Amino acid sequence: MPRTFTGSPVRDLLALTARPEVISFAGGLPAPELFDVEGLRTAFDQALGRRSLQYAPTEGDVDLRALVADRLTGRGLATGVDDLLVTSGSQQALTLVVTALLEPGAVVAVEEPTYLAALQCFQLADARIVPVAGDEHGMDPAALADVIERERPSLLYLVPTFANPTGRTLSLERRVEIAALADRHGLWVVEDDPYSELRYRGEPVPSLAALSDRVLHAGSFSKVGAPGMRLGWLRAPASLMRTLVIVKQAADLHTSTIDQAAAAAYLKANDLDAHVLGLCAAYRERRDAMIAALPSTVPAGTRWSDPDGGMFVWVTLPDGVDTNALVMSALERDVAFVPGAPFYATTPDLSTLRLSFTTNTPAVIAEGMRRLATVLR
Amino acid sequence: MPRTFTGSPVRDLLALTARPEVISFAGGLPAPELFDVEGLRTAFDQALGRRSLQYAPTEGDVDLRALVADRLTGRGLATGVDDLLVTSGSQQALTLVVTALLEPGAVVAVEEPTYLAALQCFQLADARIVPVAGDEHGMDPAALADVIERERPSLLYLVPTFANPTGRTLSLERRVEIAALADRHGLWVVEDDPYSELRYRGEPVPSLAALSDRVLHAGSFSKVGAPGMRLGWLRAPASLMRTLVIVKQAADLHTSTIDQAAAAAYLKANDLDAHVLGLCAAYRERRDAMIAALPSTVPAGTRWSDPDGGMFVWVTLPDGVDTNALVMSALERDVAFVPGAPFYATTPDLSTLRLSFTTNTPAVIAEGMRRLATVLR
Repeated sequence: MPRTFTGSPVRDLLALTARPEVISFAGGLPAPELFDVEGLRTAFDQALGRRSLQYAPTEGDVDLRALVADRLTGRGLATGVDDLLVTSGSQQALTLVVTALLEPGAVVAVEEPTYLAALQCFQLADARIVPVAGDEHGMDPAALADVIERERPSLLYLVPTFANPTGRTLSLERRVEIAALADRHGLWVVEDDPYSELRYRGEPVPSLAALSDRVLHAGSFSKVGAPGMRLGWLRAPASLMRTLVIVKQAADLHTSTIDQAAAAAYLKANDLDAHVLGLCAAYRERRDAMIAALPSTVPAGTRWSDPDGGMFVWVTLPDGVDTNALVMSALERDVAFVPGAPFYATTPDLSTLRLSFTTNTPAVIAEGMRRLATVLR
Repeated sequence: MPRTFTGSPVRDLLALTARPEVISFAGGLPAPELFDVEGLRTAFDQALGRRSLQYAPTEGDVDLRALVADRLTGRGLATGVDDLLVTSGSQQALTLVVTALLEPGAVVAVEEPTYLAALQCFQLADARIVPVAGDEHGMDPAALADVIERERPSLLYLVPTFANPTGRTLSLERRVEIAALADRHGLWVVEDDPYSELRYRGEPVPSLAALSDRVLHAGSFSKVGAPGMRLGWLRAPASLMRTLVIVKQAADLHTSTIDQAAAAAYLKANDLDAHVLGLCAAYRERRDAMIAALPSTVPAGTRWSDPDGGMFVWVTLPDGVDTNALVMSALERDVAFVPGAPFYATTPDLSTLRLSFTTNTPAVIAEGMRRLATVLR
């Protein structure tokens, strides 16, 4: 008999939002009109050749790893080529870490709510997921210390910057405390970091990986380049790299040679930082449009996050509301969101929902929020 | 502590064969000079756009699945779009099947020797690997029946056509018997089928998947198109497909959208069958050159396989020879092969080695075999 697993309710929901008349705040997609299609077309054309069509080393394209290492170093996370493993999106980095580090029954500590495809990875590995309390500044280090004492987790999973689904950012003070806890207890930490370059206000916060050698840092080309290329990377301690490479070999031998070569060609020929500034300018307006519309969209007593970056606003409606019931009414009114429940590892807060602001213009966001108001108010 | 795994000795060895003066029979690579670079360049250019740079469904590109389904159907394996999951190479298909079907401690039955990256997958899943005896016509159904009775395997793994590493093909009679055993005992079978289109003589043998609904059939673009694109597919029974899609979601969300779109564009615009005929013409000459050279390359008492297709010749030297010791001498003489030991799940035959004939021209093969003779004779 096959084992039985639960699929992603978000991906199932996305199928329902595909009608063109639906204004969707449900996905976690970058805006396709902001892709640098011509830059990427040129990069693929330059990269295509006999070498980029052949099998390649599991660790990844050396040029791409050097370019990514330089970008990470420039952002304050000193990184060498050998610290990096190229992955098929940062999603794969999670699966590789889980396979490399977790025995069945191992305990994984997480924020709650958190990225649901990470929860799925842990569930597939037969891990036991233990939530750690937090607030608008992210995970509470004292609560983490309690969980470490009580549950002896093998792994801590965090999206510390502009988290999915909450949009929250872990404060520097807490990063320092969590890094110290990881060092003291020999706890491995996954810092899932797809969003940190999408900052719309305030100052960058140092990466957790810059504060402790116990941190595996997963990055991605998906939010700043193009997700269709499925390119991510894992910056891992030397003591784990050989095991991770073996697990990656078994998973898919290596990531697409041509996509890696095209990304390297793109990074050499283009100023990705300038492109990201353009993304931030557009997304900032979209974020502001959604935040501005929220007071007239939701009922009294509703709370929401006010993210400094990323893609998501997290909304908590008054007690007693079940967003699972509301989502079908919303789809009838041609607007979509994701109910919050699947982002919880344990008991969900049914009154929560996630809104993504990246794929719609401010005008469309305003119209979508008007539709949503007829459902929520 | 990280879990500990053994890496691929073949991939480690390939690093040593990278010196340009080495004539390598070690890899399992397609010949890069036979890649249709310009056809693929055009396909990537046509495919590149906002849609092919975005996230995409986990199941894979519908156009690509339809084109693959048509090719499989044309080769005698009736297949619909919904029977197919696109994977990041057929290597990923193996990992997905293992995650979907195997509990820790499950038993996997295999040919011996067999594809070593499959063995790695099963080891990572903490499966117990049980070899089934066979001969030059492939696995022996009577031996399989014994193993089923005695060990109750959850899965049977086979490369039935032009196997890696032996080059052997399972006879039709045995396919029918093995399919009947799978049906009778409810045994899942993985038919790993990357090589069957590379036939140099004789008539095609029906796919195992055409003989039983218990067969998961893994195919690949790597040997007939280009491995750098990391494109494969898994044809699976409907009862397993939903679980496989969930496992694929957790693994990497989906395979590269742009690579899938380019492959679909390529298959629409080009006659892949004609391209494969060209590959077969070139590889047939290379196979013949290697087989012709073998009698003067190896010592008396050596046996070797005489493959009808694929990429490999399997050589068994006289008893008492250890090919692990010989490979370093071979590298000193600028020729490389893969010792046979890593292809065994249990007790290796140390006198075996694998030769690949695909990446060198007949003249280079002749020179490489002369060098090899100085080591082996």
